[in-house]
Amino acid sequence: MRVIGIDPGLRNLGWGVIDVAGSRLTHVANGICHSDGGEGDLAVRLLSLHLQLTEVLRAWQPESAAVEHTFVNKDAVATLKLGQARGIALLVPAQFGLSVGEYAPNAVKKTVVGVGHAAKVQVDHMVKLQFPGVKVAGPDAADALAVAICHAHHVQSAGRLQAALRAAE
Amino acid sequence: MRVIGIDPGLRNLGWGVIDVAGSRLTHVANGICHSDGGEGDLAVRLLSLHLQLTEVLRAWQPESAAVEHTFVNKDAVATLKLGQARGIALLVPAQFGLSVGEYAPNAVKKTVVGVGHAAKVQVDHMVKLQFPGVKVAGPDAADALAVAICHAHHVQSAGRLQAALRAAE
Repeated sequence: MRVIGIDPGLRNLGWGVIDVAGSRLTHVANGICHSDGGEGDLAVRLLSLHLQLTEVLRAWQPESAAVEHTFVNKDAVATLKLGQARGIALLVPAQFGLSVGEYAPNAVKKTVVGVGHAAKVQVDHMVKLQFPGVKVAGPDAADALAVAICHAHHVQSAGRLQAALRAAE
Repeated sequence: MRVIGIDPGLRNLGWGVIDVAGSRLTHVANGICHSDGGEGDLAVRLLSLHLQLTEVLRAWQPESAAVEHTFVNKDAVATLKLGQARGIALLVPAQFGLSVGEYAPNAVKKTVVGVGHAAKVQVDHMVKLQFPGVKVAGPDAADALAVAICHAHHVQSAGRLQAALRAAE
């Protein structure tokens, strides 16, 4: 199964694609979609993110998607901005017919680092350990790969649970 | 010039289309795009809103768009949800190549009612007075028509200013 993880943001929207075969995870590609404030009004920036992310899904053909369910910070203006970028991050995979999982940052950290309250640098470090030699485009792309890893583990656990339930019947 | 006004929301996204000829405004159509919580996960709801709003623009072919710049309320979860719906409301007109104006609720109220702190029912009332006999689909559609009216006035004022500047040269 090919999974895309997305770390939404208006300026930097990270993405990471991995292949999942049993417990083996392989890196496929990662990158960042940019939209600078100087590029024009908000609608133009969202359109630019939509076009870039659509191109990513067209190029890498993931079969499943996961988006970080960013915890809301105290700045309401920033939250609204993030929400707008997150709308695009959720829309594009849905337009490709993919189901979209959502994971809280703590769930992602717990999967990748082992504890829910790990620092961001630890997540980056563990992602690089998981995929040695892979060039990661930046912290947002590392976060996106972490979301993809979290989704892969989640789907596998669900699969194992279903298999165990079938065996017990 | 044909203008679409949009009042974004995840459950109810209001829209209103008007024709502007000089100072004469004519109602064309209005409605509400719905996405119920029961319809599935967030990505599916946003996809549904995207499809419905795309169909509205395809059907009514507006030349300009305006979206209410909703003030952020205190509930951060609600703000994030609204942001996601707003992302779709801004994206769709941009995908049709339209420029998208953004107006604060107070600017809309000031244009339609005459004061910035008017109650919501006053806005509904003035919209119905402006377009007598028109069936308005609901409060969100009335708000969307108010945004379209605000945009029409704004564009006209900008046009008159430019004409005056040209005459003064």
